[in-house]
Amino acid sequence: MAPSLELYEKATEGLPVKPNVTNTHGVPAAVADLELESHDKHDRVLKVFRAFIADLCQQFDGGHPGSAMGMAAIGVALYKYVMKYSPSNCEYFNRDRFVLSNGHACLWQYLFMHLVGVKSMTIDQLKSYHSEKTDSLCPGHPEIENEGVEVTTGPLGQGVANAVGLAMATKNLAATYNKPGMEVVNNMTWCMIGDACLQEGVGLEAVSLAGHWKLNNLCIIYDNNSITCDGTADVANTEDINAKMRATGWNVLEILDGNSNVAGTPFCTLAFGLQWPILILGYLAIANALIAARSSDRPTFINIRTTIGFGSIKAGDAKTHGAALGVDDVANIKKSFGLNPDENFTIPQDIYDFFRDAPERGRAYEADWSATVKRYTKQYPELAAEFKLRVEGKMPDDWTKYIPSKDQLPTEATATRKSAGIVGNPLGEKMKNFLIGTADLTPSCNVAYNQKVDFQSPELRTACNLNGDYTGRYIHYGIREHAMCAISNGLAAFRKGTFLPITSSFFMFYLYAAPAVRMAALQGLQQIHIATHDSIGTGEDGPTHQPIALPALYRAMPNTLYIRPCDSEEVAGAFITAINATETPTIISLSRQTLTQYPQFSSRDGVAKGAYVFVETDDFDVTLIGVGSEMGFTMETKVLLEKEGIKARVVSFPCQRLFEQQSREYKQSILKPRSGKPTVVIEAYAANGWERYADASFSMRRFGKSLPSKAAYDYFGFRPARMAPEIIKLVEEVRKDGIEVLRGDFRDLNGPLGVGFEH
Amino acid sequence: MAPSLELYEKATEGLPVKPNVTNTHGVPAAVADLELESHDKHDRVLKVFRAFIADLCQQFDGGHPGSAMGMAAIGVALYKYVMKYSPSNCEYFNRDRFVLSNGHACLWQYLFMHLVGVKSMTIDQLKSYHSEKTDSLCPGHPEIENEGVEVTTGPLGQGVANAVGLAMATKNLAATYNKPGMEVVNNMTWCMIGDACLQEGVGLEAVSLAGHWKLNNLCIIYDNNSITCDGTADVANTEDINAKMRATGWNVLEILDGNSNVAGTPFCTLAFGLQWPILILGYLAIANALIAARSSDRPTFINIRTTIGFGSIKAGDAKTHGAALGVDDVANIKKSFGLNPDENFTIPQDIYDFFRDAPERGRAYEADWSATVKRYTKQYPELAAEFKLRVEGKMPDDWTKYIPSKDQLPTEATATRKSAGIVGNPLGEKMKNFLIGTADLTPSCNVAYNQKVDFQSPELRTACNLNGDYTGRYIHYGIREHAMCAISNGLAAFRKGTFLPITSSFFMFYLYAAPAVRMAALQGLQQIHIATHDSIGTGEDGPTHQPIALPALYRAMPNTLYIRPCDSEEVAGAFITAINATETPTIISLSRQTLTQYPQFSSRDGVAKGAYVFVETDDFDVTLIGVGSEMGFTMETKVLLEKEGIKARVVSFPCQRLFEQQSREYKQSILKPRSGKPTVVIEAYAANGWERYADASFSMRRFGKSLPSKAAYDYFGFRPARMAPEIIKLVEEVRKDGIEVLRGDFRDLNGPLGVGFEH
Repeated sequence: MAPSLELYEKATEGLPVKPNVTNTHGVPAAVADLELESHDKHDRVLKVFRAFIADLCQQFDGGHPGSAMGMAAIGVALYKYVMKYSPSNCEYFNRDRFVLSNGHACLWQYLFMHLVGVKSMTIDQLKSYHSEKTDSLCPGHPEIENEGVEVTTGPLGQGVANAVGLAMATKNLAATYNKPGMEVVNNMTWCMIGDACLQEGVGLEAVSLAGHWKLNNLCIIYDNNSITCDGTADVANTEDINAKMRATGWNVLEILDGNSNVAGTPFCTLAFGLQWPILILGYLAIANALIAARSSDRPTFINIRTTIGFGSIKAGDAKTHGAALGVDDVANIKKSFGLNPDENFTIPQDIYDFFRDAPERGRAYEADWSATVKRYTKQYPELAAEFKLRVEGKMPDDWTKYIPSKDQLPTEATATRKSAGIVGNPLGEKMKNFLIGTADLTPSCNVAYNQKVDFQSPELRTACNLNGDYTGRYIHYGIREHAMCAISNGLAAFRKGTFLPITSSFFMFYLYAAPAVRMAALQGLQQIHIATHDSIGTGEDGPTHQPIALPALYRAMPNTLYIRPCDSEEVAGAFITAINATETPTIISLSRQTLTQYPQFSSRDGVAKGAYVFVETDDFDVTLIGVGSEMGFTMETKVLLEKEGIKARVVSFPCQRLFEQQSREYKQSILKPRSGKPTVVIEAYAANGWERYADASFSMRRFGKSLPSKAAYDYFGFRPARMAPEIIKLVEEVRKDGIEVLRGDFRDLNGPLGVGFEH
Repeated sequence: MAPSLELYEKATEGLPVKPNVTNTHGVPAAVADLELESHDKHDRVLKVFRAFIADLCQQFDGGHPGSAMGMAAIGVALYKYVMKYSPSNCEYFNRDRFVLSNGHACLWQYLFMHLVGVKSMTIDQLKSYHSEKTDSLCPGHPEIENEGVEVTTGPLGQGVANAVGLAMATKNLAATYNKPGMEVVNNMTWCMIGDACLQEGVGLEAVSLAGHWKLNNLCIIYDNNSITCDGTADVANTEDINAKMRATGWNVLEILDGNSNVAGTPFCTLAFGLQWPILILGYLAIANALIAARSSDRPTFINIRTTIGFGSIKAGDAKTHGAALGVDDVANIKKSFGLNPDENFTIPQDIYDFFRDAPERGRAYEADWSATVKRYTKQYPELAAEFKLRVEGKMPDDWTKYIPSKDQLPTEATATRKSAGIVGNPLGEKMKNFLIGTADLTPSCNVAYNQKVDFQSPELRTACNLNGDYTGRYIHYGIREHAMCAISNGLAAFRKGTFLPITSSFFMFYLYAAPAVRMAALQGLQQIHIATHDSIGTGEDGPTHQPIALPALYRAMPNTLYIRPCDSEEVAGAFITAINATETPTIISLSRQTLTQYPQFSSRDGVAKGAYVFVETDDFDVTLIGVGSEMGFTMETKVLLEKEGIKARVVSFPCQRLFEQQSREYKQSILKPRSGKPTVVIEAYAANGWERYADASFSMRRFGKSLPSKAAYDYFGFRPARMAPEIIKLVEEVRKDGIEVLRGDFRDLNGPLGVGFEH
């Protein structure tokens, strides 16, 4: 829960506003504004820093020392001179966001947090890295739960996309709320990457978008040590990354001495335009480049040459990447640095003194922001009230009133992808915190709301004749599903609740996006994924587009809701559930094809419980579980069974995880496992996982087939006239031999090969 | 099964060898070698082609007409003038490989196959596109099962990676077998892409590698119609793709009139070097650029400007992408083309005549190749014998002799990732068809075999001081898991059995690669994925690196083997099973941490059956299922239970899918579901799917935690001293209330919150 804005204002009242933090960014705009320490001082800080990292890895003989040591000078420039943050209040709203995309280098971040005065980050905490301490703030990769960490990183490349999302969040809030002279949001986003992050496709997708959107509030800092686990990065990568980034719409700066050139003279900030002469002189310093990034007209890529494991005898070698350096090497590092090799975990007072101004500067940033918000509140009270809700992570309006009631929903056969538009798009139109995107499937996924404005750089309006600006909340991600979801994680992480990202694509392509959906679940980030064209019912596009195993992934994934509504009413239930799940990503799985509506049976409240009785029947012979797009088959089969004197009750089962959260009593009342009667699930996916609830299934054990929707179902045996006899056989077997006959013998009913009865 | 080489030689004996196909590529090397048809003739072919596509989509009011029509001129250039193929024998070994990465444009390929004389591709087949015909050769996306299709495409971007794999296959075979004057393999790979394929990360990863490896036998043909589903591609993409491809190491050509400029005069082939003047003149023709690609020193990217839906009144509009054009529009297209609007599905004889030379040319290519192989066989009989096996898709040696016997395996505690090196690396060294790769985890995954040679461009030996050349079979993919597996699909598809691609990474990152693993399973492509660091036992790297839900995906995925061996003997079993599974991808899931070896119980033959009795016990009270890296806990728990008087039998269960393939009798003999005794599975993954075999589990319902391996297991309750009492409670409950008490009530035993007992 985000803190209330009033409390926050009180806490910063009366704090002095530093003169040099009142420019538009609230930060130094030029190196001339900085009080630079001497090169020698920097050098000493770097030595102590590097030795401490070596110690931390050595204590438990593990960890990732190499890049943390190599990036030391970058950190000094960032934390001492450039980044806007407040160590005593890491959650300060207008702080610069920092993403460590190369998350294995986390010790680097932990140690800087300690040095600049983040209270929770004690020496003991630092020493808990790789320990058995279960409440350590220093896990092997940065985790969002811990103070000062914006996003959990580790799976490479995704941090880049997270940073793009964070920068978009700033752009959208700024365009929506800022007024001349009153910038209530104007932070930068810094993203540290290693050699891997722009090898990963998700990183490349994200940088394309950042260049397109001209996110000039984003800076990627590339720790170019040219070493990966396999040795020289050249072994798998010889491209010209600077040229590639320029082609993608980025400003590019290069720093030749990233090991020690922390900050140069003001002269060296002549970065853009004069880049090449400065490069030739090897002269551009890190802080100078970082500060130059703030005034770029596009995102900035700073390519910084460093040495992995700087200081170690193995410096420049992959061996320093993922293992401790060894006792002797650690001692030698200290000796060569002029430090005492017998002292471990030592930070002399002068090092603390070097960073001492950080908390005060941070409080000044906070006070400046508070003062700005106060003035803003006076002048724009309505907008300020809304902004306040956003800061507090609350919905800007009573959203429930926009959800259609049951009697407003269609009764004629309707595709659930269409129902989702009916239910969701009024919300999309009204909720300013909804950022709604699509992986190039606007016409298919129906998430374009009335009077949508695209999120675009205003410059492209004339350049490419595009509608849209940064106030836009409709996002064209292009055909980049993985980046779409990883960027959404950044949007959601800006502050929990400030944005609710919505994405859309065909369900099948949420396999491309799965690593990012997983990271949302792991981080407790809310988002809603509108996944259309589910099941084999998607038809002619064939097996490449028909998911079979994917539901098993999302049903098994912790803290993830995979909801398959069967009609418009259940779609309403799915949206309500998803919006209420503030710490959870939800996938709403929808049909391409039209589906019979069941207003007399379906229930939005039932969806919230995961499963509920759709049609009850006294003295039943069998329970049929109907799921999402296949409910129609289930209901038709029930009718056929009745004609044969078999009484079937029907359970609608849109979400396994929600059902698991119910009481044992509720669960047994729905499934009646003690009735002695069999339960059969009908769903055109792999059965895996349904064995918990059913004795038998009509399901998929092969990939799908390119056929029109109904023909595809037919082909695999999803035809009531074919299913009913198989169910009757099962019922008769149970009548004869008792329900025990099914124990440990789950029945896959649609043919021995899983391709229906006739093939 | 590939045809035998002898049969093949016989079939082509006596065929004339055309003089102009005997240069090193066996194909025209310059436009001067071509007998060009007139521009008017091309124009007429294009009109008939486009009208026919419109008809095919109109008949069932669906499909993807736009790009198929837009790409018509590209197809004429490729099929008439440039590509080396044999319509009467699409499987001809040395054919150029063609990948339609924008698979939705498949009608384009189907229609060209018909026109050039692929017998199976009849007009009736063409008309079966989007029909209910279950044995159609024209599914909604190209499928590898069908004649003339190299790989199944549809999920965008992957085709690019497949093409990279196909080009690597050629390079490796050529470097291994070709001799001066006798090139037994020298085909090109052509890859057609749309606007999406280089937006997708997997495509971008793959082009980086192709540039790095200087795969000059690869050409990407970019159908740049600048339209995607959401409208202008500019809406999400404004980068300079030509500059980006150049930065990535590609030659770039651009064609301004891709709608009609099929082939130009020889002058226009001055492509490289003279590129810009030609561009300015708008003069470069498609065939000329394609032919120029053959003599490039690096991969070639041809950026061809086309108009989607060319000919339609909606030409240039996204509406032509994924829907039929409408009856009126189709009629108008024909009218405007000077064709009869009342005639549907019409191909006049002169169009067939235009392509009539294709079969003959194809037979000449075949004869040329046969003759070359004959000469080669005479001069290099040993090499030729090996080559013959490769062509026939057979292992070049008796591989079984390289698998260590049980008594050669370690008995001391050993990580299964280490066991995998012991078992697999002798094979890696000896098997010339194994192409072994890693996503930058050589030191961790242990797949580097003795005296490995890297697959690299020989040019990089001097440029970057890299060891390796194209004979190399060890592949550094960089940090690009998705491309690694999608490229492997291309390697495996070159010809089934000619290569067995091996990949390696942490298991968690096979989530990044999952879309490609799925495509291997769908296509029946064999490969082995060495997935180390499985389970929460991977330890300190924390929850980002600890898979929980991923096994549920791979266990549910059709035609995929996910095998978790528990010790070295089972690792041997996993390799044997994987190598024997010639139509299936296998993931071998391995531990980072050391594991107790059970030579007295474990069995390679048992692995082949999916599950087997590890330790039998008379009068047992409970069956424990031990899985992979968690077997040790299972065995220790058994001992503790015995101390309490509870008799436990133990089943080792490395692979669910293999077990499902066994008879019901076998399955019941292993799990004894009718014994009235409960079954408990112990595995540190989500339980989903185990409900088929067990009544209760110790499993994961949350994400993992950054702790040392054993501490992580402890944290979540995987501690025998904690598990035994829970099992005893369960046994007692069953004793009291009967086994029926567990029906429909699967027990998650490790704590109510799934975080062990103490949290």
